[in-house]
Amino acid sequence: MLDIKIVKTTKPKEKPKKDHPLGFGKIFTDHMFIMNYTEGKGWHDPRVVPFDNLSLSPAAMVFHYGQEMFEGLKAYKTEDGKTLLFRPEMNAKRANNTNKRLCIPEIKEEDFVQAIKTVVKVDEDWIPTAPGTSLYIRPFIIATDEFLGVNPSKTYLFIIILSPSGAYYESGLAPVGIWIEDEYVRAVRGGIGEAKTGGNYAASLAAQVKAHDEGFSQVLWLDGVERKYIEEVGAMNIFFKIDGVVVTPQLNGSILPGVTRDSVIALCKSWGLTVEERKISIDEIYDAYKTGKLEEVWGTGTAAVISPVGKFRWKDEVMTIQDGKIGELSQKIYDTITGIQLGKVTDTMNWTIEVK
Amino acid sequence: MLDIKIVKTTKPKEKPKKDHPLGFGKIFTDHMFIMNYTEGKGWHDPRVVPFDNLSLSPAAMVFHYGQEMFEGLKAYKTEDGKTLLFRPEMNAKRANNTNKRLCIPEIKEEDFVQAIKTVVKVDEDWIPTAPGTSLYIRPFIIATDEFLGVNPSKTYLFIIILSPSGAYYESGLAPVGIWIEDEYVRAVRGGIGEAKTGGNYAASLAAQVKAHDEGFSQVLWLDGVERKYIEEVGAMNIFFKIDGVVVTPQLNGSILPGVTRDSVIALCKSWGLTVEERKISIDEIYDAYKTGKLEEVWGTGTAAVISPVGKFRWKDEVMTIQDGKIGELSQKIYDTITGIQLGKVTDTMNWTIEVK
Ligand SMILES: Cc1ncc(COP(=O)(O)O)c(C=O)c1O
Ligand SMILES: Cc1ncc(COP(=O)(O)O)c(C=O)c1O
Repeated sequence: MLDIKIVKTTKPKEKPKKDHPLGFGKIFTDHMFIMNYTEGKGWHDPRVVPFDNLSLSPAAMVFHYGQEMFEGLKAYKTEDGKTLLFRPEMNAKRANNTNKRLCIPEIKEEDFVQAIKTVVKVDEDWIPTAPGTSLYIRPFIIATDEFLGVNPSKTYLFIIILSPSGAYYESGLAPVGIWIEDEYVRAVRGGIGEAKTGGNYAASLAAQVKAHDEGFSQVLWLDGVERKYIEEVGAMNIFFKIDGVVVTPQLNGSILPGVTRDSVIALCKSWGLTVEERKISIDEIYDAYKTGKLEEVWGTGTAAVISPVGKFRWKDEVMTIQDGKIGELSQKIYDTITGIQLGKVTDTMNWTIEVK
Repeated sequence: MLDIKIVKTTKPKEKPKKDHPLGFGKIFTDHMFIMNYTEGKGWHDPRVVPFDNLSLSPAAMVFHYGQEMFEGLKAYKTEDGKTLLFRPEMNAKRANNTNKRLCIPEIKEEDFVQAIKTVVKVDEDWIPTAPGTSLYIRPFIIATDEFLGVNPSKTYLFIIILSPSGAYYESGLAPVGIWIEDEYVRAVRGGIGEAKTGGNYAASLAAQVKAHDEGFSQVLWLDGVERKYIEEVGAMNIFFKIDGVVVTPQLNGSILPGVTRDSVIALCKSWGLTVEERKISIDEIYDAYKTGKLEEVWGTGTAAVISPVGKFRWKDEVMTIQDGKIGELSQKIYDTITGIQLGKVTDTMNWTIEVK
């Protein structure tokens, strides 16, 4: 158990108006959680303080060698006023996998979850309640040694900031266009692909700009070795329904093990569907498309929960999936998960935790 | 030409004592250069100001998505009191290659060099003069948008900090032990390996810790696809002298194009040696070693200029190169380049620039 000190702001900010479009990750609440790490002393001084700028040496390692990790999850307000988190222990576990890969000291899972609960409780009034909105929670760790050597830092900051965020799809689920990237590579086995760390996202920007310029909203990455196996989308894992079977790339070390991915697999299995986690080549998808067996495609991630894919661009070809409409299964998964998150659907999986 | 404003410190720090060991990247001078970028406005407000902490939102993009680049070069004091830079225009060019890959706005090469010259001039008295010492120069750019979306930032800071640094090898050139890594991968074609950006160094930490624990000072990376071709060392490029011929991995998109590498190639060619830039498999090196044809191995980089390699660990085998002694060619290259940098050897290549 952390002994978290709470210092409340004396200058609360004005909260966004009810009908003000929140967007994503642009507005921040009144407080943040901070905890320091010092070699020899461990993690110490956990505290909730007013949201404020960080003061760091320009030589702080994070600015030079990218030793940083982050997580992302959400808090939801139910109709009867409860605050729910969705599987935060999964984020705590994944955070430590990232930490290990990046040589960042681990944080006890229960401390990680306690820190989230504490700061969310303090800023509970910031959780928006309009349909589709939520409070995005961003835990992250940065290396702070004032030293230009390439070495694991001896000091770190663990911080949690909170951002009230709008509905991803303002008017219900809307299919997205996906660009299958054949030039740039995001990650390779042996690399840092399965870690949630800045370098992977920095590496993804150039392809994303290219995809946007061509009118596609996200990039689908192929493996770095053979460039033929499907990995994941920019900030989502990907699922296919082929001839009645649900298929998704296996966790191979170069893709992020999504919490939503795990939840979708569990749900589909509970409904009696066959789910295969395995290698999927782009050729297999193309064949399924050509023979009319590619029934549904969707991305999974915390931000949008489910993103139906309406079309794929692969080299000179554009594949349109199910006439660009939302699939039945995609819709059912979306309704079920968001229903559980908002306390409207019975949580038979025990996925939600109430913040008290 | 930048119009650089100079604000001098009113509280100059005490400079390190003559015999105080400087180490590397630990001590910083009195001033730093800063310039802002804002979308629509471009790079603006170039200034030299007292060295101080940066104040940044915890939501600043650099903390989350690793959109950052850096460079590294040195200033040297000659015996007759001149301040020399070594090929700074090469760093300016490489900085823009990194910028392009990371979707960071470019900086005009001449502005980049002017900024370096200006801040070095202001802190010229900080350049140490003991044998082997120099002023390490660290230009870097960080993304500063207060926004959690994965997108290129619309605002940046370009900063140059300066660090008086000690002799890399306190008592002359000393051979290092190198660990050939066969599990982790640093970079892959299509990735960000040829960019000088945090993510590559973050990815390298775990292997480096492993190598250190085993008593080796640096990691040699193999290619991410076949894991058999030699790429580069943690912060150095690598050269082999095999049966009289100088061989180094070609620039293939996943290794850093080192300024020292380029200089070593030019020097060796000017001395009539055959230099091959090509693919080199670890098997070829092992064969050359077994047949006694592996005459010399050395790393090249700004920090140490030349690092003779005394031994290699490859799986269960340790190869000892030339009895762990320094090769004749390695020594000659080291003496020539450091001689040019210190104004002691005629600079026939026109590599040095005086800061006036
Ligand atoms: C690269 C990447 N893949 C997949 C996901 C989906 O993971 P989750 O379902 O935990 O949000 C994310 C992010 O959120 C991501 O950044
Ligand atoms: C990964 C890497 N390779 C090679 C080098 C050598 O480059 P340079 O000779 O320009 O210093 C460096 C760094 O300085 C480096 O970080």
